[in-house]
Amino acid sequence: MRNLLLEIEYDGTNYCGWQVQSREKSKKSIQETLEKTLQKILQEKIKLIGSGRTDAGVHALAQIANFKTKSDIAAWKLQKALNGNLPDDIVIKRIEEAPLDFHSRFSAKSKIYRYSVLNRSYPSALLRYAIYFFPYPLNVKLMQKEAKVLLGKHDFKSFQATQKKENSSIRTLKKLDISKKGDMLTFELEADGFLYNMVRNIVGTLIEIGRGRFPPGSLKKILLAKNRKLAGPTIPARGLCLVRVNY
Amino acid sequence: MRNLLLEIEYDGTNYCGWQVQSREKSKKSIQETLEKTLQKILQEKIKLIGSGRTDAGVHALAQIANFKTKSDIAAWKLQKALNGNLPDDIVIKRIEEAPLDFHSRFSAKSKIYRYSVLNRSYPSALLRYAIYFFPYPLNVKLMQKEAKVLLGKHDFKSFQATQKKENSSIRTLKKLDISKKGDMLTFELEADGFLYNMVRNIVGTLIEIGRGRFPPGSLKKILLAKNRKLAGPTIPARGLCLVRVNY
Repeated sequence: MRNLLLEIEYDGTNYCGWQVQSREKSKKSIQETLEKTLQKILQEKIKLIGSGRTDAGVHALAQIANFKTKSDIAAWKLQKALNGNLPDDIVIKRIEEAPLDFHSRFSAKSKIYRYSVLNRSYPSALLRYAIYFFPYPLNVKLMQKEAKVLLGKHDFKSFQATQKKENSSIRTLKKLDISKKGDMLTFELEADGFLYNMVRNIVGTLIEIGRGRFPPGSLKKILLAKNRKLAGPTIPARGLCLVRVNY
Repeated sequence: MRNLLLEIEYDGTNYCGWQVQSREKSKKSIQETLEKTLQKILQEKIKLIGSGRTDAGVHALAQIANFKTKSDIAAWKLQKALNGNLPDDIVIKRIEEAPLDFHSRFSAKSKIYRYSVLNRSYPSALLRYAIYFFPYPLNVKLMQKEAKVLLGKHDFKSFQATQKKENSSIRTLKKLDISKKGDMLTFELEADGFLYNMVRNIVGTLIEIGRGRFPPGSLKKILLAKNRKLAGPTIPARGLCLVRVNY
């Protein structure tokens, strides 16, 4: 038996997310698309484990997944076969042998997500599926200052989607960088794990602060309140991308 | 009467090009999409003049066009109305008043095109419509050295599409920069004007040199021969983008 690790890039626009979700039955999931293609090539039942679920419309530059197989196909050959059979919006960047006990979700130490906001008066045609277009002025310095209260180990219940509940909403946020280059505002978040919609809710709240709808100091209050109703809106999926999983 | 200048960004993937082309009747042109939207807003017959035609699948970061109108609508208001009515793959970045004798094609002094090649063993899911994926090794230094013979005023007949003929195939190439950043190879070409398919034919020929199919020195021979049959293939449209028009 072998345990193979896959690094996957995908454009989430046309998928219901990494896994099948009840809300979007008309679209396929990334996971089932990969499993079907793996099964077609390897002629064996495959169970693919992803490092985590990405939601409908969310992209990945380097999602990590693993699966066990009896096949002795060379990793480079499987990569070529997969890329030749997958749709253009899913690409296998790397395949390598992993220890048999490697589990892409449980073995993950941290994940890095990036959220991209185009902050100018008109949208972008070329980047329309990869960014969230926000036309109103934002106080970036204030957002950077406020964001610091989220760093560290906290109960992030206020930023957790109401419809899905994990056992614990305590997570450790290792990084929350906000940088601006021209019209592009980039949020980079690293944590030991993310709750469902956590990145989109944090960025949505920071944008409410940046535009002056929430006063300075409100992020700390929202965090401590552990109440999703106080935080800002869940910002659209299109600006979100899983950029790295650390093991 | 006013003469309005438009700066336009578009994703050319779903269009037959800037103008209607006989080959691709099933797709709309960028020009007719813009003209129809302008006519709907201004309630007047509009003739939109582009700085040049981009081919089916070619993108623009800053195409320039102009049109004459009797309307007294404020430029910023027209921009908002256009962006509100256009499909997401066409965006108006700027509208301003131009002198009545300004003509986006005849007044243009030079144009800059960029061609992007992803040079690694696997493609990209997120950039699949904006780059040309080329998996074989390329000698970039040789390409940079060879490219220099094209600079200056020449008859570029060898790089002109055979099906379309302009009156003269003499053009002045002001810049041909080849740069590599990670896996991305970027060609930037500036000329007083480009023949039909000229950028794609020049880059296609340089790639044949870079991969060793054409020997060093062949670019000069091809240029002097004034024979399209000697040059390399017309490389795909998806990697090409009009980035600037200078006036």
